[in-house]
Amino acid sequence: MRRMNAVAVLDAVRTASSSTLRVADLAALTGLSRPAVTRALATLTEHGLVETAPEAPEAAGAVGRPAQHVRFRAGVGHVAGIDIGPHKVLVMVADLAGEVRAARRVAISPGTDGPRLFDTVRTALDDAVAEAGITPGDLWAVSVGTPGVVDPARGEVLLAPSIPGWAGLPVVPRLRDWLNCPVLIDNDVDLAVLGERWRGAATGADSVVFVQWGERIGAGIVIGGTPHRGASNAAGELGFVRLQPGTPTAAPAARSADRLGPDELGPFERLAGAAAIRGMAREAGVALGDGGDTAPLFDAARDGDPEAVAVVEQAAARFAHGLSVLVLLLDPGLVVIGGGLSRAGETLLEPVRRHLQHLTLVPANVRASALGDSAVAVGALRRALTASEARLTEPITEA
Amino acid sequence: MRRMNAVAVLDAVRTASSSTLRVADLAALTGLSRPAVTRALATLTEHGLVETAPEAPEAAGAVGRPAQHVRFRAGVGHVAGIDIGPHKVLVMVADLAGEVRAARRVAISPGTDGPRLFDTVRTALDDAVAEAGITPGDLWAVSVGTPGVVDPARGEVLLAPSIPGWAGLPVVPRLRDWLNCPVLIDNDVDLAVLGERWRGAATGADSVVFVQWGERIGAGIVIGGTPHRGASNAAGELGFVRLQPGTPTAAPAARSADRLGPDELGPFERLAGAAAIRGMAREAGVALGDGGDTAPLFDAARDGDPEAVAVVEQAAARFAHGLSVLVLLLDPGLVVIGGGLSRAGETLLEPVRRHLQHLTLVPANVRASALGDSAVAVGALRRALTASEARLTEPITEA
Repeated sequence: MRRMNAVAVLDAVRTASSSTLRVADLAALTGLSRPAVTRALATLTEHGLVETAPEAPEAAGAVGRPAQHVRFRAGVGHVAGIDIGPHKVLVMVADLAGEVRAARRVAISPGTDGPRLFDTVRTALDDAVAEAGITPGDLWAVSVGTPGVVDPARGEVLLAPSIPGWAGLPVVPRLRDWLNCPVLIDNDVDLAVLGERWRGAATGADSVVFVQWGERIGAGIVIGGTPHRGASNAAGELGFVRLQPGTPTAAPAARSADRLGPDELGPFERLAGAAAIRGMAREAGVALGDGGDTAPLFDAARDGDPEAVAVVEQAAARFAHGLSVLVLLLDPGLVVIGGGLSRAGETLLEPVRRHLQHLTLVPANVRASALGDSAVAVGALRRALTASEARLTEPITEA
Repeated sequence: MRRMNAVAVLDAVRTASSSTLRVADLAALTGLSRPAVTRALATLTEHGLVETAPEAPEAAGAVGRPAQHVRFRAGVGHVAGIDIGPHKVLVMVADLAGEVRAARRVAISPGTDGPRLFDTVRTALDDAVAEAGITPGDLWAVSVGTPGVVDPARGEVLLAPSIPGWAGLPVVPRLRDWLNCPVLIDNDVDLAVLGERWRGAATGADSVVFVQWGERIGAGIVIGGTPHRGASNAAGELGFVRLQPGTPTAAPAARSADRLGPDELGPFERLAGAAAIRGMAREAGVALGDGGDTAPLFDAARDGDPEAVAVVEQAAARFAHGLSVLVLLLDPGLVVIGGGLSRAGETLLEPVRRHLQHLTLVPANVRASALGDSAVAVGALRRALTASEARLTEPITEA
């Protein structure tokens, strides 16, 4: 009974919106008596999970001893969220309140293979935990997002067309051996949509589709609060949708990474992905930035340069065409656009919406990602926090 | 307590797979004592919900009085399922065990407007209930399936491109006034998938997509046992997916029936619907049946006629292209193909599967509907049965 009370009080302290909680507030939140709350707080303090601080004198009344504020000791544990992609690795380390304590971003050169990528991840995580003042062994849970077809239950990457040698690499077992904590793996876009629902453009949305728009194009689908991953964990493969008639070229007929090289984009990616847009810009004589950065294209369009405007229109029309298929089939209500191209913001999204409305039966609310290219790592943090919750109450319930 | 026991025994009698239930079986199924089951059966018999019959002498033992078999009196009530489409009205009347007691099918001539269609429905329902030996007022629940965008909660047809004057017609209120029982309305394809899961090609499937392939093309989506209707009840509109680039023609930009005439097919319907296939056959000089019946085309293809085979190949390739989009986005595992064209069976589905596998990342199991063009009405019966359950236990629980 006392243990149950302690768990209830801990939940209340962790999830309360107010940061200045007193015993009376906790009694009201939990329905427990004040003495029961006080006993529970003693247990939680003993296990290092909460701390109390005297109320600031100006806030306390003039009479009697000052009241105590109760705070969750979020720093008692840490989690990591890791976005592993073909172009970058982003590691975030957060405390148990989800506050980001350190982040490491490492660019990946094209053609990096699976084993080398794993080493990069390891180094980035080492650096990030050091910055957060802990060691890798101190992590309570780690969540990894990666492109391709991922089986979260078995912790395996089944198909990763964009990273050679990544599918089949025992990423999760290796991380588990090293870190000795729960390690989860998900499709990157499925984590991005989780991130946007937690702290991004889809907070409070029960059903939403997140569309990653960059070199690759993919969708993370949430229906009625539940991620829809599909019968073979292969839902949301918008990048492989074909919008032209004719016989397939380079069709990935088998579920095998060996059959798909790193450059084998899907038909819709070849039509509307970042490489296609760079190609259109070059053809129209619009300057791009270093390494083909598309930011100058969108800047020029914003300034009214007619060639740049025409390229952006064409890109938006192509993307809206693919998006219309998704809206016609799923009617998701809300669509969040993320990925590198979403950085162009309204310059790109306004024409996307304009083209989309001519192609669908009912409207969809199309918004830019609020998290940008951190969405996957933020969603991974959210997953890791959920996975860490069992450990939080373990010392109390087993005491 | 006695009432709860009676409801538990009734549930056991209704859902038991065995048709020869004795008191001992019901005690085992419900966990109640034999005397409690006997008391519950007395209550249920009094309300006309169950009946007992002496066991056949050859099955009973040689000694003692013969045991009693307990049966649900399924004829105590009836429900109706109605499929209202642009080409036919199909009414089915069933008892509370779901046994079909009467059916009426009426062909609808092209261009029939909403009010005339409603009269046809009324007459067909009158005829069907008469054949079942009841009156319309005896129905316990009625479920209606109709094409277009339907709001089941408000009982409204919001958009019905294929039936002029149908959207906005107060179908549900009129039926309720007449019948004085619960009347439900759903998108036809959403009911078809329910029918296939109940008694068709998708029994036991938790996630499945049903694709209607006829003059119109639409999909009914079930994910994790729940129909996915979309934020605006407009999910599954595969017929409006556009598989060619270019500017939209006749795009239905507003959610209004007035903007869509009865002949305004969606882009994918124009590409792969029944009319398109008839057009391909005529162009290739393949004979069709009366009124453009496509059966002779498929018969000729089955007999190896090269022109017919070529038309079927082209039709299958086009349809597989649209189907691939659905499989790439949803990864449903199982796809059931219904509608008029599914009557062609393997002659059409074998090439569909063959083309599909080159266009998707993971396989989908593609099956023909087991219910044919009765799927919508059968699904409507299932919906109506569920809606009638409250009335079944009302007299017991309120006694």
